[in-house]
Amino acid sequence: MYNKLTNEIVEELKKIVGTNNVIYDDPDALEAYSHDEVAEKHYAHMPEAVVKPSSAEEIARIMKLANKYKIPITPRGAGSGLSGGAVPVYGGIVLSVERMNRILEIDKENLVVVVEPGVVTNEINNAVKEYGLFYAGYPMSVETCYIGGNVAENAGGGRAVKYGVTGRYVIGLEVVTPTGDIVHLGGKVMKDVTGYDLIHLMVGSEGTLGIFTKIYLKLMPLPQAKVDLLVLFHDMDTAIKVVPKIMTFGRIIPTSIEFMDDLSFKAACKYLNEKIPFEEAGAMLLIELDGNNKTELEEQYEIIGNLCMENGAIEVYVADNATTSERIWRIRRNIAEAWKQFSPHQSLEDVVVPISEIPTFLKKIREISNKYRVPIPCYGHAGDGNIHATPIKPPELSMEEWHEKLEKLLEEMYVVVKELGGVISGEHGIGHKRKKYLPLVLEPAHIEMMRAIKKALDPDLILNPGKII
Amino acid sequence: MYNKLTNEIVEELKKIVGTNNVIYDDPDALEAYSHDEVAEKHYAHMPEAVVKPSSAEEIARIMKLANKYKIPITPRGAGSGLSGGAVPVYGGIVLSVERMNRILEIDKENLVVVVEPGVVTNEINNAVKEYGLFYAGYPMSVETCYIGGNVAENAGGGRAVKYGVTGRYVIGLEVVTPTGDIVHLGGKVMKDVTGYDLIHLMVGSEGTLGIFTKIYLKLMPLPQAKVDLLVLFHDMDTAIKVVPKIMTFGRIIPTSIEFMDDLSFKAACKYLNEKIPFEEAGAMLLIELDGNNKTELEEQYEIIGNLCMENGAIEVYVADNATTSERIWRIRRNIAEAWKQFSPHQSLEDVVVPISEIPTFLKKIREISNKYRVPIPCYGHAGDGNIHATPIKPPELSMEEWHEKLEKLLEEMYVVVKELGGVISGEHGIGHKRKKYLPLVLEPAHIEMMRAIKKALDPDLILNPGKII
Repeated sequence: MYNKLTNEIVEELKKIVGTNNVIYDDPDALEAYSHDEVAEKHYAHMPEAVVKPSSAEEIARIMKLANKYKIPITPRGAGSGLSGGAVPVYGGIVLSVERMNRILEIDKENLVVVVEPGVVTNEINNAVKEYGLFYAGYPMSVETCYIGGNVAENAGGGRAVKYGVTGRYVIGLEVVTPTGDIVHLGGKVMKDVTGYDLIHLMVGSEGTLGIFTKIYLKLMPLPQAKVDLLVLFHDMDTAIKVVPKIMTFGRIIPTSIEFMDDLSFKAACKYLNEKIPFEEAGAMLLIELDGNNKTELEEQYEIIGNLCMENGAIEVYVADNATTSERIWRIRRNIAEAWKQFSPHQSLEDVVVPISEIPTFLKKIREISNKYRVPIPCYGHAGDGNIHATPIKPPELSMEEWHEKLEKLLEEMYVVVKELGGVISGEHGIGHKRKKYLPLVLEPAHIEMMRAIKKALDPDLILNPGKII
Repeated sequence: MYNKLTNEIVEELKKIVGTNNVIYDDPDALEAYSHDEVAEKHYAHMPEAVVKPSSAEEIARIMKLANKYKIPITPRGAGSGLSGGAVPVYGGIVLSVERMNRILEIDKENLVVVVEPGVVTNEINNAVKEYGLFYAGYPMSVETCYIGGNVAENAGGGRAVKYGVTGRYVIGLEVVTPTGDIVHLGGKVMKDVTGYDLIHLMVGSEGTLGIFTKIYLKLMPLPQAKVDLLVLFHDMDTAIKVVPKIMTFGRIIPTSIEFMDDLSFKAACKYLNEKIPFEEAGAMLLIELDGNNKTELEEQYEIIGNLCMENGAIEVYVADNATTSERIWRIRRNIAEAWKQFSPHQSLEDVVVPISEIPTFLKKIREISNKYRVPIPCYGHAGDGNIHATPIKPPELSMEEWHEKLEKLLEEMYVVVKELGGVISGEHGIGHKRKKYLPLVLEPAHIEMMRAIKKALDPDLILNPGKII
């Protein structure tokens, strides 16, 4: 189906991007581009070459070359993905945007920042905060991930309850199409119905429909104050039932409502040697509020604290300074790390269910966990029903037994998700890792529509093949 | 290319939807379905038949029939569109969703309402407000338009500065595809990256990629207080420069920032016999704030009022009760009506430019207005750069002269928009009316992508042909 790279083609690539920006015939250097953050080795695949272009024009030429010779191209950001999206499963060329890392413009009048895809997401906020502005996208890997990858995956993260996910802020894109055209979609415009919404078809397309070379992001006024609440409950059912009460009776939309089950926070608290009296708790909520008015924020956390206590909370801890706040968030962020002490192999899932179904889902997960004898700590974003249910390999299982077991376990988990009206990925994407499960949860006509769109825009399936469909 | 309806096909349609729900061979009854709110008669076209299905299953059967006999299908909501999107330009069948007008579910736990496409948008808020909830989509025609049409056009309206446009709230769709499959996208899920974002490809596709049969909308807590400010300025330049100051120095995101030039508000004030001392003003801003805390709102409008006065405003009027508020909004809403007294023919445009380019755009529009000797009042949504520049037919011109002149004038206007980094439609859509101008403002490869997607999902171009591309 695809051709192999030849020395001639590599020479052509060198002419386009410069000799120093092509890696070829160097297995050690290529290895780093063979995987993302999915730990399991069998999802990795070696590229034949890596190219590091510096402009849309270079990428367009590479795409035309790839179409001519039928070589697959896999675009890559920081490689911090969690679904194998940047893995070159059919070999060919990995196109890394690492050199395209400039913040091109901060437009204070229009509240827009224009960036290249290789900018580290955190740097955007570092750059715009001196103007009293902020970019609201906030994946948990904000210190390493690239904005290009965030857009490709439509990254979610911790602030989505109030601010939505990455896509809400993408108002313009310069894109190189799979056939090598450079197309400009949207721009510094806050509304646009001039034809189909190709921007949001591109957002979340996991590098299969286009390569972003310029990204226009909407900015907002930087909130001046924030506060975090850590709320302990006896059980998850009680904890989750508070969430819609905050949103309706309390009329407050928090920035984050994170939850952790006991398997999650007990591991993290022990790992961090954290002194919070967590032993009698069965669930925790971590609620963040932001705003411009400290008094109003205090009123809001009073309301939320009271709502929690009236509805079965054991205790509410308030963190209104950076030190205490960091102490609380460390618990949430260190769950995966804590479990790695127990076993390095885990399958970090990111299913989404309707918020009201979280307790049922967690009950079913406990059943699945017992059935397969696999620990499955659950934590994540309660405010939007996005759950990191994370099967952990028991140390006594061989890798082969683990893979076999995991496959069945995930299938069962995904069927539960589907039955509860949910979806199997809320922020990490389908990629390579979840592709085989898609027919389990989507209707054939739905998958057929995606396939038809892919084929329409990339007739020879050159761009990131082997992903999603 | 398309076939004509026959009596046999009409009989089959009657079997699907019932005899009473097919209009055929009745020009008077069909005429109502030959146009939308675009006044110009030459954009109208008679359908051969109208069908009024009551379910997704019936629509799927109609689509399969239409594919079999190659008859075009044009879906229709309330017919309140402003780009001819519901006009059956190739004849065939108009599919009206008027009977599918049920609110199917108000889910208070998940903050979701599930509706059929024929629900009047305003009814959604009437239904959910008793639960302290609200749907933030707010087209100006909220009392007549259908939610199905809002989704098809990705309707904008007055609240988009704070709340975004319709698409932000669409989290699930049941869609009948152009080939007659029923597909379920998303649902009561707040995040979803399980495959391509087909929901937002459908949103704004103007009835060309699918017919929505169920719409899942995200709800929010109902704000408890609101206030409106009417601010008078000597000129538009000064008025517009306040907008980013509010967003950054003031750190306030208003619900609305509407603007009116003197041609607009003077016509409306005279028409309404409004006593506001508007004579020395050259521009007005109408700023709406909402929130849950009256004290905070007062602080915010103080800040905004002061910012306006420090930056050249003549006067700030505060409306913090429903009566005064309605008096202010009536001015904004009656501009089009006021100008109809002068001349019934106007071309209501909805271009978008970067906010900072509004003054330049308005200057260029005055030049175009002088050149063509056509009044072009400008008003609209300053907070998102969405401008209703509205060429008005001078009474002395014949209709023929007017059409000829308007075509050239619009071309010139759209080129200006393009040069300023804008787009030609922010909320009304391309439809039938602006189709011919698309090559003027979009790159050929961009149009080609849209055409490829349309062809991929609707190979025989059965669904709403003659629109967009």
